[in-house]
Amino acid sequence: MGTWLIQGATVLTADESGAVLPRADVLMRDSEIAGLWPSEARPAEIVADQTLKADGMVLIPGLVNAHTHAAMTLLRGYADDMELMPWLQQRIWPLEMKLEAEDVYWGTMLGAMEMIRGGVTCFNDMYHFYPDAARAVLDSGIRGVISGVLLGFLPNAEERLEAAIAWSTEWNGRGGGRLITMLGPHAPYTCPDPLFARVVEAAKGAGLGIHTHLSETAGEVADSVRDFGVTPVQRMQRLGMFDLHPVLAAHCVHLTEEDLQTLVRGRVGISHNPGSNMKLASGVAPVPKLLAAGAVVGLGTDGPASNNNLDMIEEMRLAALLHKLHTGDPTCVPAPQALAMATRLGAQALGLGDVIGQVKVGLKADLVLLDFRQPHLQPKHDPVSHLVYSARAGDVRTVFVDGQPLLLDGRFTTLDEETIYAEVNARVARLTQ
Amino acid sequence: MGTWLIQGATVLTADESGAVLPRADVLMRDSEIAGLWPSEARPAEIVADQTLKADGMVLIPGLVNAHTHAAMTLLRGYADDMELMPWLQQRIWPLEMKLEAEDVYWGTMLGAMEMIRGGVTCFNDMYHFYPDAARAVLDSGIRGVISGVLLGFLPNAEERLEAAIAWSTEWNGRGGGRLITMLGPHAPYTCPDPLFARVVEAAKGAGLGIHTHLSETAGEVADSVRDFGVTPVQRMQRLGMFDLHPVLAAHCVHLTEEDLQTLVRGRVGISHNPGSNMKLASGVAPVPKLLAAGAVVGLGTDGPASNNNLDMIEEMRLAALLHKLHTGDPTCVPAPQALAMATRLGAQALGLGDVIGQVKVGLKADLVLLDFRQPHLQPKHDPVSHLVYSARAGDVRTVFVDGQPLLLDGRFTTLDEETIYAEVNARVARLTQ
Repeated sequence: MGTWLIQGATVLTADESGAVLPRADVLMRDSEIAGLWPSEARPAEIVADQTLKADGMVLIPGLVNAHTHAAMTLLRGYADDMELMPWLQQRIWPLEMKLEAEDVYWGTMLGAMEMIRGGVTCFNDMYHFYPDAARAVLDSGIRGVISGVLLGFLPNAEERLEAAIAWSTEWNGRGGGRLITMLGPHAPYTCPDPLFARVVEAAKGAGLGIHTHLSETAGEVADSVRDFGVTPVQRMQRLGMFDLHPVLAAHCVHLTEEDLQTLVRGRVGISHNPGSNMKLASGVAPVPKLLAAGAVVGLGTDGPASNNNLDMIEEMRLAALLHKLHTGDPTCVPAPQALAMATRLGAQALGLGDVIGQVKVGLKADLVLLDFRQPHLQPKHDPVSHLVYSARAGDVRTVFVDGQPLLLDGRFTTLDEETIYAEVNARVARLTQ
Repeated sequence: MGTWLIQGATVLTADESGAVLPRADVLMRDSEIAGLWPSEARPAEIVADQTLKADGMVLIPGLVNAHTHAAMTLLRGYADDMELMPWLQQRIWPLEMKLEAEDVYWGTMLGAMEMIRGGVTCFNDMYHFYPDAARAVLDSGIRGVISGVLLGFLPNAEERLEAAIAWSTEWNGRGGGRLITMLGPHAPYTCPDPLFARVVEAAKGAGLGIHTHLSETAGEVADSVRDFGVTPVQRMQRLGMFDLHPVLAAHCVHLTEEDLQTLVRGRVGISHNPGSNMKLASGVAPVPKLLAAGAVVGLGTDGPASNNNLDMIEEMRLAALLHKLHTGDPTCVPAPQALAMATRLGAQALGLGDVIGQVKVGLKADLVLLDFRQPHLQPKHDPVSHLVYSARAGDVRTVFVDGQPLLLDGRFTTLDEETIYAEVNARVARLTQ
């Protein structure tokens, strides 16, 4: 696979110290980061198969999208500005009923293309036809955490559950580790206790993680208290879900003080999804409190039907802005914290803290270069502030995953844009007819 | 100046009906829009000096940034995540004290470049050294509404006021109408009654508009009630400000029911600035109520020190998301309304409703083409939804102001990027040393 040397970029390491190197060189060997030096201190003997000059560029760890449903690119802009239940019942679900496996493959390919183009190198996905989403991960070159959506009320729910356990156990780690599988019980309000119990048991047995939605709306929490006597978080705690690791809980908007402590103690990975929570009017997750209590909070886009994109730079910005407004404190969620959530903390939330999420020797070479020679990123003050408060996904020029270039100076190396657009639009024409 | 024909774009007219033409041709003659037809219905005799094929493109009226301080690009990312008073007193004001006229020229040039690149064709500006901001408007080709900032507590406040009145009267309408001048009393809390009275009198006499900040923070309103016995809106009403037109009031976050009625009755143009209001934790303007009451509400970025960009596509998205969350109603501020605020309503708010803000024959040819052949703008469902909920400023490819191309397929025709970056960074190095 060889070596690449990136020279002269400003490096935002996103490590614990938040170190920024104004001008640094990064060596990639095979799939890993093999060296990191201030440019003037790079040892003379370091040579590489390929060299990439990066003056005026900012290098960051690949962004981690901690919660999405990538194939829902197919539904982007299909229905907006509606109440939740009419939106689901009249628009989203009828279209999803017509979905075929190949639709999910191409929808996920479009999502992968959008994410690579926008500097996202790892995404955590839950959807129908998950083996086809996994195929898109392997074909596109992106890193993906794939879980099939498990719903208690579907016909053959038990059979589907056992099939998901078998598939996840078999496929975990394929693509040289780029494909990670998890079990995906959809949410406490769609899955009965026995399903959760079986998921927890199987995850323990096979060493798999769990990906679920948790406490997204006030109504969900009220219903849980009515029907189960406890909040969704406490119900999951009772079922033993937080005894294993990693568990990725998406949303966590409506939490009691006890819930918050439970999530921290259980080292539960949380995906905060500000864009989706705003668009669906779900509420504001207590992110500053969670972070202060030591919770592991990443950021996610949620699906493109409720966002409507897979843009993690936008999510960083929304997180930084939303919590300032909500708390009335303009010092809340400063730019370095937003960057940490989109990288290091997101990786930790997915159990990948030792694998990705920082520019650090020994981690996987999932790296992104952004072109800062643009009007909205000048003059040169603080590059972390520019990234969080002014940059856009379109500023990404080059993306590596596992040391492989997937986007080089704005061009895809593994994906054919026109084929994907044609496939997706043809499929959408069938789905909406 | 000649004629241009744009062929085959999807046209979002942003007119009262919100009409979308799936495939249309637009003719520009000199500075105006001279024709608009469905592509198949364009009369055969129509020919133009230059033709622009726009398949896969979306054409919109140029975006109107209803409130900014463009030269504050110089301070972009210089200080963030701070409480308001330390931010102003320790960081912003000390740097602004060192500003020179030429700094404002180059800062405004950078702002104009950023806005043109992002599809903004008209901006409403208030800052120091306003003749130099006006020079940047004339040199760059953008449309600009320029007011000098008037502050009651500066030395020679009266002399500055008279100079601003004289300059504004003389320069209004230059550049073939591209430069519009207004008087800019900074805010009720920085200007005494006599200054406002003189501004109102002079504006009436010279036929000028007024640009001011109004009711941005809860503290400002409380102080006004304490010191003047009424809210800032009622104080301005008493001083006769709302008897003239146009008045552009920026922010209007904290309003009483009476204030709201006063603003509607006075046909006061309001600039809603969601990004700035979130970042500074100012609060949430009652935009859905204002719109329902018939208020003229445009959108603005505010200055890049508190935003940190001049991206009006982002402001559309923030407006649509913020009010859904704040009201708990996901149908609130739907995409077409956000687009109207960023175009037609913004133009009306600046007294330019008959000049710009729609794709309509007879209006000025301020037009923007965006490339929708991109992963985050596929598949093809609703282009208005895609624009508001998924597009980015970087998707803009071509921009006309007054029928003149300022950006053609991503390249500036009037601005030299490298010169502007070099000037701005050299000036910032001096200002921050």
